[in-house]
Amino acid sequence: MSTQTDVNTLLQGTAAAIAADPSIAAVNVTADCALIGVHEVDVQLNDQVVKSDQPPVLGGTGLGPNPVQIALAALGACQAQTYRFWSEKLGIRIDDVTVDIQGALDIQGIFGLRDGVRPGFSDVRVTVGLSGPEPRERYEDLKRAVDAHCPVLDVFTNPVTVTTALSVR
Amino acid sequence: MSTQTDVNTLLQGTAAAIAADPSIAAVNVTADCALIGVHEVDVQLNDQVVKSDQPPVLGGTGLGPNPVQIALAALGACQAQTYRFWSEKLGIRIDDVTVDIQGALDIQGIFGLRDGVRPGFSDVRVTVGLSGPEPRERYEDLKRAVDAHCPVLDVFTNPVTVTTALSVR
Repeated sequence: MSTQTDVNTLLQGTAAAIAADPSIAAVNVTADCALIGVHEVDVQLNDQVVKSDQPPVLGGTGLGPNPVQIALAALGACQAQTYRFWSEKLGIRIDDVTVDIQGALDIQGIFGLRDGVRPGFSDVRVTVGLSGPEPRERYEDLKRAVDAHCPVLDVFTNPVTVTTALSVR
Repeated sequence: MSTQTDVNTLLQGTAAAIAADPSIAAVNVTADCALIGVHEVDVQLNDQVVKSDQPPVLGGTGLGPNPVQIALAALGACQAQTYRFWSEKLGIRIDDVTVDIQGALDIQGIFGLRDGVRPGFSDVRVTVGLSGPEPRERYEDLKRAVDAHCPVLDVFTNPVTVTTALSVR
């Protein structure tokens, strides 16, 4: 995976474009979802669709991962891609990256079966495996940069202001 | 979508099983990710795979949505399915549910181009559209229950403890 020069050139181009016009750095990400079955949801993300469902034991048809799995997928993919971006930026070669995640959840929170149990994850463990020719300290430097700049890790670990509105048709 | 009885019966069964043995409520959700291209990531979620990528402008091949899009997909699908679960639980009929999300992000945070800019979303707006025969107040009750019990909304709005570990092979 010797992509060092290409990605870095693109990142430098992006940085130069933002320096010339900082307003282009503000992006609006959209997701349009429709409940099309008992629990089956189609999510339109620009020109791509992600499907979510629940397993039959909860009345679903198992046609896609459930939302908490998808949340961990977002975190894992984000960690992996942020390792790519920041390895290029810092000039630290990586040959291979895996990210394994475990998230602990008590489903009593989701179904309101027990007070004081949060519906989301109580604890998430991320294990990044990588290989490459650099000394260990360089990869520790890379990890610090990644964890400080990974957008989905930020969403998990810090509060995001979310406004929900209801429109009854 | 007259699924009222089926899902409620399943939920009551789940509640009874947890009451008999609360330890079964603790679940461990996993996601195993591998960077298989420049930015292309395959995420294994039990028996399902979600692919993530970046667009060509950032050096990717556009084979899947990027991680921040996937994070919003998780939130939208979770809102839709939590409306389903809680409408059954509270006996509030819903005929149709859509969830449209907009997330504002400044990419200077991701690339470390400007201090003080967070890498994740600064602001997320969720618009739920639904139809059904109940009075407006009932749907407002439903919205309150959903927002208090939606696991991915909890992940966005409250801090989650995430531990990251690095293993150099």
